Amino acid sequence: MKLMRVTDPDHVLKIIAEHFVPLKSEEMVLEKAGGYCLAEDIYAPENIPDFNRSTVDGYAVAAKDTFGSGEGIPAVLECVGEVAMGQPAPSIGSGQCCLVHTGGMLPPEANAVVMIEDTDVTGAMIQCFRQVAPGENVIHRGEDLKKDDPALAKSHRLRAPEIGLLASLGITAVKAHRRPVVGFFSTGDELVNYSRAELKPGQIRDSNAPSLLYLAEQAGAEPKYGGILPDNFDAFLEQSRSMLQEVDILVFSGGSSVGSRDYTARTMQELGQPGLLVEGISIQPGKPTLLANCGGKPVLGLPGHPVSALNIFKIFGGAIIDRLAGREGKRFRPTVKAALTRNISSRSGRTDYVRVKLTNSGEGFNAVPVFGRSGMLRTLAEADGLLVIPAEKEGLSAGESVEIEIWD
Amino acid sequence: MKLMRVTDPDHVLKIIAEHFVPLKSEEMVLEKAGGYCLAEDIYAPENIPDFNRSTVDGYAVAAKDTFGSGEGIPAVLECVGEVAMGQPAPSIGSGQCCLVHTGGMLPPEANAVVMIEDTDVTGAMIQCFRQVAPGENVIHRGEDLKKDDPALAKSHRLRAPEIGLLASLGITAVKAHRRPVVGFFSTGDELVNYSRAELKPGQIRDSNAPSLLYLAEQAGAEPKYGGILPDNFDAFLEQSRSMLQEVDILVFSGGSSVGSRDYTARTMQELGQPGLLVEGISIQPGKPTLLANCGGKPVLGLPGHPVSALNIFKIFGGAIIDRLAGREGKRFRPTVKAALTRNISSRSGRTDYVRVKLTNSGEGFNAVPVFGRSGMLRTLAEADGLLVIPAEKEGLSAGESVEIEIWD
Repeated sequence: MKLMRVTDPDHVLKIIAEHFVPLKSEEMVLEKAGGYCLAEDIYAPENIPDFNRSTVDGYAVAAKDTFGSGEGIPAVLECVGEVAMGQPAPSIGSGQCCLVHTGGMLPPEANAVVMIEDTDVTGAMIQCFRQVAPGENVIHRGEDLKKDDPALAKSHRLRAPEIGLLASLGITAVKAHRRPVVGFFSTGDELVNYSRAELKPGQIRDSNAPSLLYLAEQAGAEPKYGGILPDNFDAFLEQSRSMLQEVDILVFSGGSSVGSRDYTARTMQELGQPGLLVEGISIQPGKPTLLANCGGKPVLGLPGHPVSALNIFKIFGGAIIDRLAGREGKRFRPTVKAALTRNISSRSGRTDYVRVKLTNSGEGFNAVPVFGRSGMLRTLAEADGLLVIPAEKEGLSAGESVEIEIWD
Repeated sequence: MKLMRVTDPDHVLKIIAEHFVPLKSEEMVLEKAGGYCLAEDIYAPENIPDFNRSTVDGYAVAAKDTFGSGEGIPAVLECVGEVAMGQPAPSIGSGQCCLVHTGGMLPPEANAVVMIEDTDVTGAMIQCFRQVAPGENVIHRGEDLKKDDPALAKSHRLRAPEIGLLASLGITAVKAHRRPVVGFFSTGDELVNYSRAELKPGQIRDSNAPSLLYLAEQAGAEPKYGGILPDNFDAFLEQSRSMLQEVDILVFSGGSSVGSRDYTARTMQELGQPGLLVEGISIQPGKPTLLANCGGKPVLGLPGHPVSALNIFKIFGGAIIDRLAGREGKRFRPTVKAALTRNISSRSGRTDYVRVKLTNSGEGFNAVPVFGRSGMLRTLAEADGLLVIPAEKEGLSAGESVEIEIWD
């Protein structure tokens, strides 16, 4: 009996980083660029802001005109007008000030703003009850970014703040790495399309396809469904070869039986060099996972059990998508802290993912393990997230503080 | 001078939960239902699975035929055939077995499966080196879900596992709460559209609009941009009234000066009853936030500074979107643990959000605060996430372990 050669999950991530490269870049408009990773360094084409701006509502002053003033001894300045928003500021002379709103431009002679709360108005005269230091309540020209400063580096991912930063620079289009197209095949003669109303004995609906397509979309890829492959090697290979030409990543799901696995592995060897890289991962659920590099394109063979398939695709499919999308470094894996409600055993040398439901104990969260076989989707639908038991651990005890990765 | 009445952030979330209700439901196809919240209870229309299935590759047996067997004393069974995937299983008699693949149907007389690793084949005779208990390596009919069992409850959000679960039941469409449409207006005469190449003195580009539109999309809403409102109350009110009819949530951004804030607040009072609910939040950055209920529709007035606007929209805009989308309970707020690299002061009675960059120290993450005014988008683009300092704290010390909410 041939044993499965299993690879450590961290090593699989290294293989992904080493074997694959980011996709070509394309020019895209800023409104559509959220989530993409830059394929170019961006430098500021101008100063941000391009003029000295007030950060408060108040009076623009020369700071020295307020020196020595305080609660009982106001500085008295003459107000010569108001800075209209979006307009150049008027000039002020010594002992003068002008009204300015948040975001308004400072007169060239002003270097600080006295907040409106610290003033009193008597006709055209303003009493300032607080002295201000030069620069106080002012954002200076170029303070956010100076012209020609590096603004964003290559492979930086565009989140909302980056979109805003680029918009503030007047940049309306960027070069970013293309979003990977992921092709999905389901395998197994027992499967029928999930829209089939009546099942014959022995048949089950292909529930992995729609959930994996959604996961791929969430991970930032464009999913493409190829249908259910027959348990016939020639047809299997031919359809796979044709799909691989149209996509950046190819994923097989459902072939957990030896027969399906065998077709998948043989197909991976035929589709391109160097072929199969990983034939099992020391992870539970999800051990019987296949990964290949077929002529530079990643091909992933997921275990057939739905819970395993989703878990593996989330971790390794996600890492492949990130790599091709040009994302720098690893994703953070934020967690919610919780108290484990019962003992859990785990085999050393294997990373275990345990489904848990989080309940509010009043003082924080309790992590309640949801047990069930890896074929049972209901258990995953009941779970809020996954508890990861690292390979070096042999289990966890009730009451222990644990960290839960939320399944969103 | 009128002081701003500030509301505690948790109380603002309570106000949102009390004042607003989920949007009407609509029927949608399962492939497009990811991220939506159910507006109906779902019961299983059939058993899942609908037949006893093997969870491994092996031989389907009557468990009692293997009792007493072991490493040196195999039970010997006659193999009468193979269960073809997707086909009814053949019958077996006493002392017989048949080959079954993972997911294959069990013969009616079989109640367990011996894993292929625990057998040896000699012609038609199979030696089993391990006894199996009844039910071993089998998922029973109805084990995942029994016909008429509750499968998913109303307001459950559809993630990948739920999509799979519904697909396995043959459910191709569901009733779910509509995705909220969020209308955005920018306010302030200093603003010009971000695509404007040349700026006049005193003008700045409207960078909040594109970043907020992207945030709204990420939060599960459909954004709609209404443009930049003039500093003219009649036009301001008229355009707002017309937009409010077309959207579920209305958001004003940019009006942080007293004038703009005043227009926004007055508009909120005019647009519908009961009007203004919140006129400030004890949070930093983001204090000058307005929230109103205008005839049942939420209207949010964001502070003008970009960092404040994004922070507030993420927290409270997100909560409003969740509420209207019918999401049950609060979102989890997962974090990454890190060691703070320096002291941070904070005012008691106010929740502070500090931008931090996470660096890998080898033994975990360091949280390096990124300082800068709330007008500076660059500081948020440099930050990986936010450190929350609760209102009751007066600061944090270098070396302290902190939890960072990742900004994605």
